[in-house]
Amino acid sequence: MNQITKEVSNAIRVLREKVPLVHNITNYVTVNDCANALLAIGASPIMADDIAEAADISGISSALVLNIGTLNQRTVASMLAAGKRANELGIPVVFDPVGAGASKLRNDATREILEQVSLTVLRGNISEVSFVAGLAASTKGVDASEADGGNDAVTVAKAVAEKLGCTAAVTGAVDVIADGKRVAQIRNGHPMLSRVTGTGCMTSSLVGAYAGALRDGFTAAVAGIASMGIAGELAYEAAGQTGTGSFHIAIIDALSRLNPVLLEERAKLDEI
Amino acid sequence: MNQITKEVSNAIRVLREKVPLVHNITNYVTVNDCANALLAIGASPIMADDIAEAADISGISSALVLNIGTLNQRTVASMLAAGKRANELGIPVVFDPVGAGASKLRNDATREILEQVSLTVLRGNISEVSFVAGLAASTKGVDASEADGGNDAVTVAKAVAEKLGCTAAVTGAVDVIADGKRVAQIRNGHPMLSRVTGTGCMTSSLVGAYAGALRDGFTAAVAGIASMGIAGELAYEAAGQTGTGSFHIAIIDALSRLNPVLLEERAKLDEI
Amino acid sequence: MNQITKEVSNAIRVLREKVPLVHNITNYVTVNDCANALLAIGASPIMADDIAEAADISGISSALVLNIGTLNQRTVASMLAAGKRANELGIPVVFDPVGAGASKLRNDATREILEQVSLTVLRGNISEVSFVAGLAASTKGVDASEADGGNDAVTVAKAVAEKLGCTAAVTGAVDVIADGKRVAQIRNGHPMLSRVTGTGCMTSSLVGAYAGALRDGFTAAVAGIASMGIAGELAYEAAGQTGTGSFHIAIIDALSRLNPVLLEERAKLDEI
Repeated sequence: MNQITKEVSNAIRVLREKVPLVHNITNYVTVNDCANALLAIGASPIMADDIAEAADISGISSALVLNIGTLNQRTVASMLAAGKRANELGIPVVFDPVGAGASKLRNDATREILEQVSLTVLRGNISEVSFVAGLAASTKGVDASEADGGNDAVTVAKAVAEKLGCTAAVTGAVDVIADGKRVAQIRNGHPMLSRVTGTGCMTSSLVGAYAGALRDGFTAAVAGIASMGIAGELAYEAAGQTGTGSFHIAIIDALSRLNPVLLEERAKLDEI
Repeated sequence: MNQITKEVSNAIRVLREKVPLVHNITNYVTVNDCANALLAIGASPIMADDIAEAADISGISSALVLNIGTLNQRTVASMLAAGKRANELGIPVVFDPVGAGASKLRNDATREILEQVSLTVLRGNISEVSFVAGLAASTKGVDASEADGGNDAVTVAKAVAEKLGCTAAVTGAVDVIADGKRVAQIRNGHPMLSRVTGTGCMTSSLVGAYAGALRDGFTAAVAGIASMGIAGELAYEAAGQTGTGSFHIAIIDALSRLNPVLLEERAKLDEI
Repeated sequence: MNQITKEVSNAIRVLREKVPLVHNITNYVTVNDCANALLAIGASPIMADDIAEAADISGISSALVLNIGTLNQRTVASMLAAGKRANELGIPVVFDPVGAGASKLRNDATREILEQVSLTVLRGNISEVSFVAGLAASTKGVDASEADGGNDAVTVAKAVAEKLGCTAAVTGAVDVIADGKRVAQIRNGHPMLSRVTGTGCMTSSLVGAYAGALRDGFTAAVAGIASMGIAGELAYEAAGQTGTGSFHIAIIDALSRLNPVLLEERAKLDEI
């Protein structure tokens, strides 16, 4: 068992001991799944997006997750207030730039968040992360564009990590996580994960849970993304033939049954 | 196999080839189901309701679905902006007037949408569609009123199609779809569909997916409504005895396993 | 069979006969579950939170449920307008003060609702209900704090019922319901219910459904909380080993299959 696998196996032990409270300002499409994924993995979710309480709630939380999947002008202000408070208190911040590049509103919101909030982890598909880095990227809706083959995920993750001084996690067939010093690859997951809405959002929330427990963005990102990848494999084995509805439910089942031994057996992690 | 059944069977082939991006401005009760139903049938969902991006997102989409299930004054403005942009670009617009007749806000919003946006398909229960047509109708909540027996669905659908110059789809025990030239009836479905929230909303999103792929409102409406009806039958066979929670999940399962052969075998469609 | 068990068994008969329309102004995390729980138990849900229609919708409903899980300044105003209209018309009002004590916004909203709206039932965990009563309480996120062992649930429920002149329901390992005259305890439920988001919110919506059917806050609270407790037990038996995702779905299944006989067999109710 390599070093990063040991760290991930330990991460879920620590998470379940600490039960971190994770504040999510996220979209209304997948928010129920994010809350249930957090409960399944062993964290405690709180969703609060009004400007009058966003910073207060971040202040009592162990981590903050910002997700612009269905952003609006009201919640962007709340994200900025919550992010600044988290930064003041040293609380880790995970940012999921859903659909960045798809509209001026998303681009402006992304820019404001990058300018005003220090991120611990940025997680997205290669289109979104490339856009954030100011690299060429075209976004079709909120799903990964397949037209970005030219931007290699390792190159993008390293460049973004350096540019923003955070952990950059580019998820795809092979996930790449970079933090300026280390680079990890994850070969878990299943293609059916892209046929259920919210698997990316849930992954970001899981990264938030691990970050709240560990205070280490790199290991948190690897642990959160590996947890979802393994849950996807287990869910496919349990329910893939039944259809995408049962597969969706089986993802939450798998997260709730995940444990250090299962992680060690299943994780396909390496550092490059 | 009659003509309309052939068209519907072909429709799902075309949809899965084109993977249309469907922009939904919809309610927060059933939005997750709408997204997962779209993914299951083979489309790509995007939800975006802020006035600062609604028209931009419609502009990159293949279809727009407007649903007033939990409308508010902010999102009504976004619906109008998105609808106008879709009209300018020739992108099909599906309107689901959930609960029209139940409050002044819903009535005013419905009127504004009808005045400012050309619809491709209007889909609702007989109370809602009758209300839209200015016919007598009483709405109890968001479920179909059984007091509207006096308004025959065929008469209502034909009248609304003529009045609005669009495809009118009245869903109920027997669904009726009319577009001024053709009238179809669908005898698929299961009564248990009314015991799960969002089956109507999902149907409208499916109609949007087919409309985005086909650019033909009549066939899209028949295909979307037949897809949900058949999914309801399959879901009842798989999980009806277990309860409404499992039945709900089995609907998505069935949509994800639907294919041209299954549609041809199951569809109970005829033109009158 | 004791008196309260007979009343609860009768309550579900009455509910299914009357199919009460239940207006929910609730959070976007668990709103889909609330709607499906209401449909499963035999009620009809409507969600509407814009100030321009909130009072209108309450006016045509049999009960109103207010839940501040993801409140914002816009919906607080709607809650007040809906609550006042419900009071004018004698429509029962259930209030779920999710996370009261966790932020100034939640505290202010709670205070305003208590000042301006007469409640029929207040339902929360002991932290939340204690906070509402102005008793010492610390809230960690939206889950029950275990640090409140000092405030005995019976004492809290009785004090709040007296103070507010309503039924107070404190849910926990043993649920306590008090209305100034009667005090009931419920020993149904399963610990896994706390690993799914929204089981508290669904319980409040079920209490609303029974209140709409019965017009008796005490019996409605006992019936709603017992229904969820028994559904949790049945769900654990059906799916507890599979994981929290399947358990979640099995809760809705169990609610949809609940009936007077099952309630009589399973209910662990007593008055003290």
